[in-house]
Amino acid sequence: MRMVYVVGIGAGNPEHITVEAVRRISEVDVFLFIDKGEQTRDLAQARREIIRRYAGHREYRVVERQEVSRDRRPSDYEATIRAWHAQRADLYEELLVAEVAHDQCAGILAWGDPTLYDNTTSVLEEVNRRGNVPFRFEVVPGVSSVAALTAAFRTTVNRVGQPVQVTTGRRLLADGFPEKVDDVVVMLDSSSAFTQVDPAAEIFWGAYVGTPDEILIKGRVGDVAQQIVDAREEARDQKGWIMDLYLLRR
Amino acid sequence: MRMVYVVGIGAGNPEHITVEAVRRISEVDVFLFIDKGEQTRDLAQARREIIRRYAGHREYRVVERQEVSRDRRPSDYEATIRAWHAQRADLYEELLVAEVAHDQCAGILAWGDPTLYDNTTSVLEEVNRRGNVPFRFEVVPGVSSVAALTAAFRTTVNRVGQPVQVTTGRRLLADGFPEKVDDVVVMLDSSSAFTQVDPAAEIFWGAYVGTPDEILIKGRVGDVAQQIVDAREEARDQKGWIMDLYLLRR
Repeated sequence: MRMVYVVGIGAGNPEHITVEAVRRISEVDVFLFIDKGEQTRDLAQARREIIRRYAGHREYRVVERQEVSRDRRPSDYEATIRAWHAQRADLYEELLVAEVAHDQCAGILAWGDPTLYDNTTSVLEEVNRRGNVPFRFEVVPGVSSVAALTAAFRTTVNRVGQPVQVTTGRRLLADGFPEKVDDVVVMLDSSSAFTQVDPAAEIFWGAYVGTPDEILIKGRVGDVAQQIVDAREEARDQKGWIMDLYLLRR
Repeated sequence: MRMVYVVGIGAGNPEHITVEAVRRISEVDVFLFIDKGEQTRDLAQARREIIRRYAGHREYRVVERQEVSRDRRPSDYEATIRAWHAQRADLYEELLVAEVAHDQCAGILAWGDPTLYDNTTSVLEEVNRRGNVPFRFEVVPGVSSVAALTAAFRTTVNRVGQPVQVTTGRRLLADGFPEKVDDVVVMLDSSSAFTQVDPAAEIFWGAYVGTPDEILIKGRVGDVAQQIVDAREEARDQKGWIMDLYLLRR
């Protein structure tokens, strides 16, 4: 039966890939990419470099499909995401049927860890549920961007015995700093939600963490928020895209 | 100057180690172990196996010190932890002075990811602050036990656009299911706090995840809580120790 590996490849540093991920990559017949267009050409390039480095000298194919477009500022967020999720499932279903023979092994590379803010796993579950194309799949865990960020700052995500919350910029804006939690990791923040929190909080912000383009800024929110806003804007202008996240500590 | 690498080695599967971790291990002159006694002999054994596999044929030394004992059920938890933290700092300071020459490289291997519920990094910061022994240190991120758990279940830590909280058994017992968060990862739970939550919640429980002894149980809390309690007890009896965690989903 078709086998699909969802492989976490770390958050950008090519050495943050695991021995298991390397082994799985070396077994893949067909790599399936969702191409997100011009903006993330660097990312596609980095992914290809990982394949070149680790896939060995066997025969393998790389198949790309265009990203399913979606409204980035929808009025009904949940419904938009559900529809997008279903379209992604269509896309993977079509790819598995058209590109992966029943005795072949497909690989989907996920930045960071596939179980944290990556939907490949739940999309594949959906394709599996539909039952139109038989396949098995496994998830190969990776170094999350959260671990890469805190390691770069030589700090910890949580403090001793304390909880930590991982959330999105959207949620932080809507709900504020969560109650009874003093350490919050914020991902997917396109709206600079950190400018809206207690200026006395500490922030550990990083972009392109672990890559040669890494930018790290830390300090009191009140002191460095503008510096971060400027750094994001400049980086986005220069590269066309940004991958960043931060830890807020009360 | 002395260099110390705090290296995340994954949560138990020797293949969950990264290429960077392998490289750093191959550069270490002295590995520093805190020996936690008979109970965790398997863990010490697994760690030694990782060194054997990845350190290569160079000369290196392994130095062990006895764990600093602490009250596991103290009346004042915070104070006990602070005192224990200071003792650990004493221990590492002594180890660096006695065992690592000023031009040598030390390695401390941390299970899972060194930035999540591991205090080595903050203890080393404390030793650095004291200034009695000059050294630099770097943190090599790893695959956290959280990522290993959710990968084993082929699920995600969070749901689309939703927050997730990582907390301890102690906190879950004291504060209950956090507000506005439907996905909670619980670590360090010696008191089976999951038996006290909404029986309709889903639980994904794993012990020794990624190792040959892996145990995975999932289901509604009301249906599987007793099964998990029994499995924990049996496993602890057989091996003398347990390393487990779980995801609760409302």
